[in-house]
Amino acid sequence: MNPTIETILNHRSIRTFTEKKITSEDLQLILKAACNGSTMGNMQLFSIIVTQDKEMMQKMAPAHFNQPIATNAPLILTFCADFHRFNKYCEYRGAETEAYSNLQAYQWAVTDALIAAQNACVAAESLGLGLCWLGTITFNVDKFVEILQLPKHVVPVACIAIGHPANTPELTTKIASTKHTLKKKHILIQLLFLKKINFQI
Amino acid sequence: MNPTIETILNHRSIRTFTEKKITSEDLQLILKAACNGSTMGNMQLFSIIVTQDKEMMQKMAPAHFNQPIATNAPLILTFCADFHRFNKYCEYRGAETEAYSNLQAYQWAVTDALIAAQNACVAAESLGLGLCWLGTITFNVDKFVEILQLPKHVVPVACIAIGHPANTPELTTKIASTKHTLKKKHILIQLLFLKKINFQI
Repeated sequence: MNPTIETILNHRSIRTFTEKKITSEDLQLILKAACNGSTMGNMQLFSIIVTQDKEMMQKMAPAHFNQPIATNAPLILTFCADFHRFNKYCEYRGAETEAYSNLQAYQWAVTDALIAAQNACVAAESLGLGLCWLGTITFNVDKFVEILQLPKHVVPVACIAIGHPANTPELTTKIASTKHTLKKKHILIQLLFLKKINFQI
Repeated sequence: MNPTIETILNHRSIRTFTEKKITSEDLQLILKAACNGSTMGNMQLFSIIVTQDKEMMQKMAPAHFNQPIATNAPLILTFCADFHRFNKYCEYRGAETEAYSNLQAYQWAVTDALIAAQNACVAAESLGLGLCWLGTITFNVDKFVEILQLPKHVVPVACIAIGHPANTPELTTKIASTKHTLKKKHILIQLLFLKKINFQI
């Protein structure tokens, strides 16, 4: 097994970090990796907000339901679906932007942002760092927009807390990949596995 | 630079493949990697449809606007946001599912599916394979649902064509990661770079 697949298969969410900061070199590599994924028509419809400042983390904490990781992590990356930059580019080139004012275009920007986010995660883990996605971002989008002073057409869709792991939790029980995949006739697989699986929710 | 970050930074879309098939071993590794990412509350709200059958590719081709890659690739992976399985699980446990009948929950499933998709991409590229996202999936979701016989609450959100690269295109010009990231005061960066960047759309 190659080191990349090994990194991916060793993934587990890390919720406790040591005091150690993320080096500037590691941060730059993570951001470069984030920005090198596929994007819709190379439109690059995303932005990343880098938070290392504890004061800003404190401001965001209530919108993250005050979970400790939101302030204890040395680094928080917030990934935004971003049509603001692209629309500005269109204006600059005298092009119309109406075609992008719909849910389909929003989906493109969400996709670009999430590709970037997962690239950042794999890169961070390859550097020995640990991370956890903060799903709380989806509960309080309006508050994050306000706190982060985001302009129109910039929507936070993913938030990752990153740091040096303080522990190594057991791997989570996952549905086997064979149960996630549908073959040949493309009819949804039976749900027989439900009795066996140990769902941890 | 470690091999994982090297893999990510060497990413470019591959649209022409050799005749060589994907080995079963490689496919299993790609699917395992896809299924090992973070997921919302470990709900694992996604499914992957594996298409290697040319007849099925031909059926999907018109919905992919007949782009050659949709039939020339040896492997097409279609990633679906999937609340069908989880709802079945809830029913089986006698739990209500109404709380998930909204756009926020849909966003969770989209996120789970896209994390899985990008993990698959990084894994495939680490194995020397090439790939291209088919954004066409977002144009004809209803048709793909019909062709793939997907039940309610299963929505295709990403489609990746994978194969052995027949060429090595130049790396695409990307916005520098420093232009994607916002720091300190979290105010959107100036758009001065627009005059310099060579957007390729």
